[in-house]
Amino acid sequence: MTEVEAEADVGTVYLIGSGPGDPDLLTVKAKRLLETCDVVLHDKLPGPEILESLPDDAEDVGKRAGGERTSQAEINERLVALAREGTDVARLKGGDPFVFGRGGEEAEYLAEHGIPFEVVPAVTSAVAAPAVAGIPVTHRDHASSVSFVTGHEDPTKPESAVDWEALAATGGTIVVLMGVGRLSDYTAALIEAGLAPETPVALVERGTWPGQRVATGTLETIVDVRDEAGIEPPAVTVIGDVAGTRKRVLEFLANERGGDRIENGGT
Amino acid sequence: MTEVEAEADVGTVYLIGSGPGDPDLLTVKAKRLLETCDVVLHDKLPGPEILESLPDDAEDVGKRAGGERTSQAEINERLVALAREGTDVARLKGGDPFVFGRGGEEAEYLAEHGIPFEVVPAVTSAVAAPAVAGIPVTHRDHASSVSFVTGHEDPTKPESAVDWEALAATGGTIVVLMGVGRLSDYTAALIEAGLAPETPVALVERGTWPGQRVATGTLETIVDVRDEAGIEPPAVTVIGDVAGTRKRVLEFLANERGGDRIENGGT
Repeated sequence: MTEVEAEADVGTVYLIGSGPGDPDLLTVKAKRLLETCDVVLHDKLPGPEILESLPDDAEDVGKRAGGERTSQAEINERLVALAREGTDVARLKGGDPFVFGRGGEEAEYLAEHGIPFEVVPAVTSAVAAPAVAGIPVTHRDHASSVSFVTGHEDPTKPESAVDWEALAATGGTIVVLMGVGRLSDYTAALIEAGLAPETPVALVERGTWPGQRVATGTLETIVDVRDEAGIEPPAVTVIGDVAGTRKRVLEFLANERGGDRIENGGT
Repeated sequence: MTEVEAEADVGTVYLIGSGPGDPDLLTVKAKRLLETCDVVLHDKLPGPEILESLPDDAEDVGKRAGGERTSQAEINERLVALAREGTDVARLKGGDPFVFGRGGEEAEYLAEHGIPFEVVPAVTSAVAAPAVAGIPVTHRDHASSVSFVTGHEDPTKPESAVDWEALAATGGTIVVLMGVGRLSDYTAALIEAGLAPETPVALVERGTWPGQRVATGTLETIVDVRDEAGIEPPAVTVIGDVAGTRKRVLEFLANERGGDRIENGGT
């Protein structure tokens, strides 16, 4: 077999973002590829409505078998193996594949193994979850920058890769993805770094999903608000004056998909 | 007329993001609303292909009449006037409406005037332009945060709202939207703030548009690269180790839509 023939037999891997979860916020391209690719590989993060719409033979690499989640190494190998069988693969990830989605690692692994791939960017939850709650992550009067981090890091550990002091010093909006569990750690770190305790904070649980819930407070009160409201993952935390916009527009905001509004203190 | 009847006569304004410019990256919802709303109001930023697909009677509020661009105040008033006529309005903006899109200001104005509105989040160019050039804005090995700013601000002015020193200190990726004109100012500011001169930088011109171009270099070389390549607005600048990912995946990256690749120094 010549090299050209061999290449013709290799499938393409599409690293596709699902967006925040509302199927209406899939891109036209993502929706088409999910319908036309030979195989769909997905994890749990795309949300219930998108997962229900996938073909019956879609492979769930987010589920735990015998208590073990499929490892990143296993996913990488599976993508390469499928492509080498000549299969076009839709690799579906929650949110955007390149915003805390480990899409960069998968892209590098594919390139190392000679597999052609395409990136299909998506609406990131870091922007969309605040937006549907009436919160613009930037605003000419309030925030001239916005930073995204994940809440999975422990800010009390010296080896934490996230520099909360520098983030506080930017003066811009801070959006924390997967930010429920360590909320008390990083709100304390941000106050310690000099942010005002009365800085507005909003938690958006299951943003754009059915049953979306929004809870608001301040750096000082939001942990209590979370506990009282019972906010659970997945949720996005928005920190900064922009979070106060919600209060000003809420009465005329037409796009919450049901769910509770828990408006508390400070914003 | 009772209040309820009056309300029933008011249209809804949809603040819709076009995404980065490729019509395939519109959301399903944006595409549908552009087809079903009574009126479309848009500026120039959605890019040539999306603008060509709009209805013939779409209103261009980005064009200059007699040398004057339609002011934000005029746009706000037009949205309210149309809604009060009972018209459903698709207000289309380039990128995401809440990421440096002044969507927050329009939302507040609408709410102040009693007009129901909905936000339709989009794929932001800040993520998508790097992505289609093979650059993940976050990466477990290289960047645990990402910050978006605009290059419209003059970093040499003391009243600049962007704190480049703090952004440099985050250690994360920095994405500058509309970042061509002041490139020399803010690359100098970032080196001054302590970033290594050999930090990888990529410029993505017209990301996802036909004729997209990508130029790469370092904080020290990118101004010369831009000048030699003749990179022009609109373009996104990506600063940080993640920009080096492009070199590692480029051979197998299948989604550049033609256009030049200008690979220079350092990455």
